[in-house]
Parts: sequence; structure tokens; C-alpha cells
Amino acid sequence: MTNICYLVGTAGSGKTMLTSSLQQYLITKGASLTTVNLDPAVQYIPYKADIDIRDYIDYDRLVDEYKLGPNGAMIAAADLIADYIAEIREDIEELGESSAVVLVDTPGQMELFAYRNSGLKISESFPKDTSFLTFLFDSSLVSQISGFISISLLATSVQIRLNLPVTHVITKVDLLKPHQVDDIIAWREDPYEAIEELYGMTREFSARAGQIIEGMSEIPLIPVSALSGEGLELLSAQISRVFVAGEDWSI
Amino acid sequence: MTNICYLVGTAGSGKTMLTSSLQQYLITKGASLTTVNLDPAVQYIPYKADIDIRDYIDYDRLVDEYKLGPNGAMIAAADLIADYIAEIREDIEELGESSAVVLVDTPGQMELFAYRNSGLKISESFPKDTSFLTFLFDSSLVSQISGFISISLLATSVQIRLNLPVTHVITKVDLLKPHQVDDIIAWREDPYEAIEELYGMTREFSARAGQIIEGMSEIPLIPVSALSGEGLELLSAQISRVFVAGEDWSI
Repeated sequence: MTNICYLVGTAGSGKTMLTSSLQQYLITKGASLTTVNLDPAVQYIPYKADIDIRDYIDYDRLVDEYKLGPNGAMIAAADLIADYIAEIREDIEELGESSAVVLVDTPGQMELFAYRNSGLKISESFPKDTSFLTFLFDSSLVSQISGFISISLLATSVQIRLNLPVTHVITKVDLLKPHQVDDIIAWREDPYEAIEELYGMTREFSARAGQIIEGMSEIPLIPVSALSGEGLELLSAQISRVFVAGEDWSI
Repeated sequence: MTNICYLVGTAGSGKTMLTSSLQQYLITKGASLTTVNLDPAVQYIPYKADIDIRDYIDYDRLVDEYKLGPNGAMIAAADLIADYIAEIREDIEELGESSAVVLVDTPGQMELFAYRNSGLKISESFPKDTSFLTFLFDSSLVSQISGFISISLLATSVQIRLNLPVTHVITKVDLLKPHQVDDIIAWREDPYEAIEELYGMTREFSARAGQIIEGMSEIPLIPVSALSGEGLELLSAQISRVFVAGEDWSI
């Protein structure tokens, strides 16, 4: 069985840093894990990738050979992932079989993974009941109510698109004051009052957006800091609950 | 007065091609317009940009001088836009004053414009009542119901984030069969039945997503093809209705 956790979030939300910190944390806890880099355009990753899409796709060659600009090359590189699905699946199955969890760090620009075809194809090539998404709420965006609602709808959009269960994390909480984290958690529990303060939305629309957010109350929301390590224990416990309740590394 | 229309949509949805076709169409109709390229990382644009962010931000220099990879350089370039807001605003006001409309082609990777700070700062630097978004529904994504719901929620997310009125267009309809366009329009009018066919969503969640989509029924949805010109007349009429009802170029 291959248990897969995809880390997904907007550009700069901290996917790669969280992958790195989570990897270190899980190794310290004695977990067996496989770490995958799925970003063909990344230059430096601060963790050891057991499987690396860059072994199959050479971004710089795409730029040179096809004279593509960065936008076109990034789209082409992300789309090319679909051509290597069989290889990637084989790699993941081979290493993942003996791992408690496979951490998958997805492309930096989220829309290339979530809204083009290769991300869907990758996620569909593994059983749904042993895969889930960790969606990153970038603290610099969600500390304001309009950003929070916007990213909540985005998370829902990605969840529907990839059709997988999800856990939410707030990243880089070391940059927030404690009351800001409390605010975000309070908005999720009762979004209506906060939404009403937003300029420019009709009452009907606010109510609908509120319902979507209220409907998220069952989804765990874990504040984490890849820098200080805050929240990694909770996130690790959540991964453990999803996949291997009761294993040693589950705190 | 400066009337601004931002073209926004996921990577590859056809923003630049639509900007180009719309520019040609409007010029043919005798409209006075200003066209702005806000993508610092684009290499080739098929239209004449009256204002071009690349005159201020040199993507290749960022790559060379700061040794950034493509992900980092794109984020840095998009974030740098915020440093030139005063200049960009001045340019737009100067040319836009005598134009019926200012078309703004936004960065290729939508999340860099919509979910980082510079997009919000640009949109906030002009009055809200003379700005609006044209959000592009990529036909290759929205011809399936899960993609349609997902992109509808994404459009709502971006609308809330940038806090501007919106018009929706389905792009590249030359790639769809007529019944596929009809399906998309039907899903919008009555999303519930289609949503029920989706695997893996609770009844409650489906109902909530349905309500959001039903709530969009007041937003125009225009099928367009930048290639064949289909729908440009309707889109142009919609821009005209928003800004300058009754002008000559308004068909």
C-alpha cells in the first residue's frame, strides 16, 4: 500500500520548506518515508528527494531547445509530467510500499499542478483512499479576512478538482502574532460576522461564501512553522491518523 | 476617467491571445484604447502594448544578477510590480484618460497576480467603479463538470480577493463542440443535478457549491474564440455596457 500526502498551495506559500521540515521531523520520529519532488523548474531544494521529476524533465533544455520564455517553459515542463506518469508511479510504488508515507512536494506555481492535466493524472494514478492533500494557507494572505475567504474558496476549488480528502495548514505562523492565528480560527468557526465587514459583496453572496467556509469546519486546520517547528507534531499526528493510526511515529 | 478591464485566468487560459484579438476588434470598431502588458516574464506578445511592465522590470537580469531559478525569479518579478505602481498608474492615467478602455493583460501565472500583493495594489490604485475583471474560463478545463465547479469557485475566489465586478468568458470555444458549450451554460443555470454526479462529495457540500454557482447567474458568461473571433462582439458590447454605454464602438 502506498500512502501519499501531496503538499499543495499558492506560489510562495511554503510547500518546499514544509516538505523539508516535515521530512526531518518524521525521520527523527523514526518514520520510514519517501520524499518526492514534482517541480521540474525548481533549482534548489533543501531536502533529499528520493524521487525527483528533474531526473526525467530538464527545464533548462526546454528553454534552450525550444526557445521558450519562462511562462511557456514552465507550462511545458509541468505538462510533460504527464508523459512520465508510468515511470513516476513505478518509482513511487517501489519506494512507497515500504514507507509509512510518501510526501509529494508539488510545483511552485500551484495552478500548473492543480489546473492543468498532469496533476490530475498523477493523483488519479493512485487509489483515492490512500491519498490526501495538505493544502497550505499562506499566513501572509489569510491574516486578512478577504484573503482568508478567497484562499478558503481556492482550497475548495483544488479539492474538487483533484477530488481528494484534505487537511489545511496555516504556514509561516512565526510571522503572525498569536491573536492573528486566533482570528483565523475564529473566522472559520463563524465566518458570517467577518464577511459582513467586507466591502462590495451582496448579502446573498456573503451568506453563500459563509456557508462554504462553515462547511469546512470538519477539516482540520493546523498552524505550522517550518522554521520553528511549531505544529509539525500535530501535522504528523494528522498524517498518521489518516494512514497508519497507532504507528510509533504518530507521537 | 480611466476605464480598466483586467484579463485574468489560469496559466494557458488564453489571456494574451484574447488581449490581442480584442485589441484588434476594438480598433476595427473605432474604439480608442490603451493596452497594457503587466507580465514581466513574458517573452513574446502578439499585440502592441502601449504600456509594458518590461520597460520597468527586466526578468532576465533578475535571473542573472540574483541567481534565481525560474520559480523564484517569477515571484520576484511579479512582486517587483508593486515597486512601480506610481509609474504604472501615471502611465495608465495619462494614456487611459483619452481612451474608452484600458485593457490590462495580467501575468501568465494567475496566482502571481491574484494571490500575491502587487495585483491587489495595482487594482486598488484605481477607483473601483471604473474597473472590472474579465475572468477566463479555460474551455479545456470547464468542459468537465468537476473542472467547471472548480474554476467557478476559483473565479469567485479571485473576485473576492481583488474586490472588483466581473464578467466571465469561456475561451478557445473553437476547440469545443457546440453541445459542450450548451452543457456549460446549462450547468451554470442549474448546477445541482450535474454536481450530484460527482464522486466523493457529501450532499451538504454539493448543495453549498451549487449555491455559489447559482449565485453567479447574474454574471454574464460569454463564449469566445480569439482564433475565429466568435464572441468578441458580445464581449466588446459587455465592456461597452460597463463603461460607456452608447458609444459608437459598442456595436
